[in-house]
Amino acid sequence: MPDPTLSKTIYTTPQQAEAAFYEAIERADLEAMMAVWAEDEEIICIHPGGARLAGYTAVREGWRQIFAGGRNLRFALAGQVYSQGMLLSVHSLHENITIIGEQRKPPPVVVTNVYIRGPLGWRMLVHHASPGPAGSDTQHEKPKTVH
Amino acid sequence: MPDPTLSKTIYTTPQQAEAAFYEAIERADLEAMMAVWAEDEEIICIHPGGARLAGYTAVREGWRQIFAGGRNLRFALAGQVYSQGMLLSVHSLHENITIIGEQRKPPPVVVTNVYIRGPLGWRMLVHHASPGPAGSDTQHEKPKTVH
Repeated sequence: MPDPTLSKTIYTTPQQAEAAFYEAIERADLEAMMAVWAEDEEIICIHPGGARLAGYTAVREGWRQIFAGGRNLRFALAGQVYSQGMLLSVHSLHENITIIGEQRKPPPVVVTNVYIRGPLGWRMLVHHASPGPAGSDTQHEKPKTVH
Repeated sequence: MPDPTLSKTIYTTPQQAEAAFYEAIERADLEAMMAVWAEDEEIICIHPGGARLAGYTAVREGWRQIFAGGRNLRFALAGQVYSQGMLLSVHSLHENITIIGEQRKPPPVVVTNVYIRGPLGWRMLVHHASPGPAGSDTQHEKPKTVH
């Protein structure tokens, strides 16, 4: 059941918003996912190989379809590079995804996440994920903050 | 021949830097391309389907390989969504690419470009390009600025 307090969660850093984002995916929790996104903004979401989804309705529908598959994804993040301004924070990272019940290990996903600061703290503005080439190992990269 | 004044060009808006970026690709001009990128930053470049390239040397080598193919690409940009802060500016857009001498029209490329403001104006910090699905028409989208 959706938690009505979720939409009021305040993320005081973009890193908190990012943690909530990946937790929502692992739980396949659509309400928690959409609570991470900025309101009243032109939000943008690009799933690997997919079309650009723009705006709340399209972004929500994209996650609804993914979550219909159940709670079967686990994420290990690597190689984070953070560039943070006053209003916007840009995170480059790799997602190493495990599909529960499958032996196959997909190649890392290359991701750019952008967060925007508003009255309710930091929220997601852009999630751009695209498949990286097969055979790359990104598990042991260390986080780096440049701003 | 490389123009030695290029590295001192000041882009007063991220849109100017973006125009210089696409002009450098169309001209296959490696020096002009690298002059658009931020210096002393952890720059990130992801070509469609490629691995994440991080840092000046890797980013430069990526463009060198692409430009070795000659001046054969033409770009029509569409669907721009700009989110601009004081320090960072995030651009979401579609690249409709024509390969000169080929009839085939590749599907639009989905792009997130991030610019950072420094002492020498706005410079590119992140270029994340990934292939969109075939069959999508993005030629007639209008630009939109949300910040």
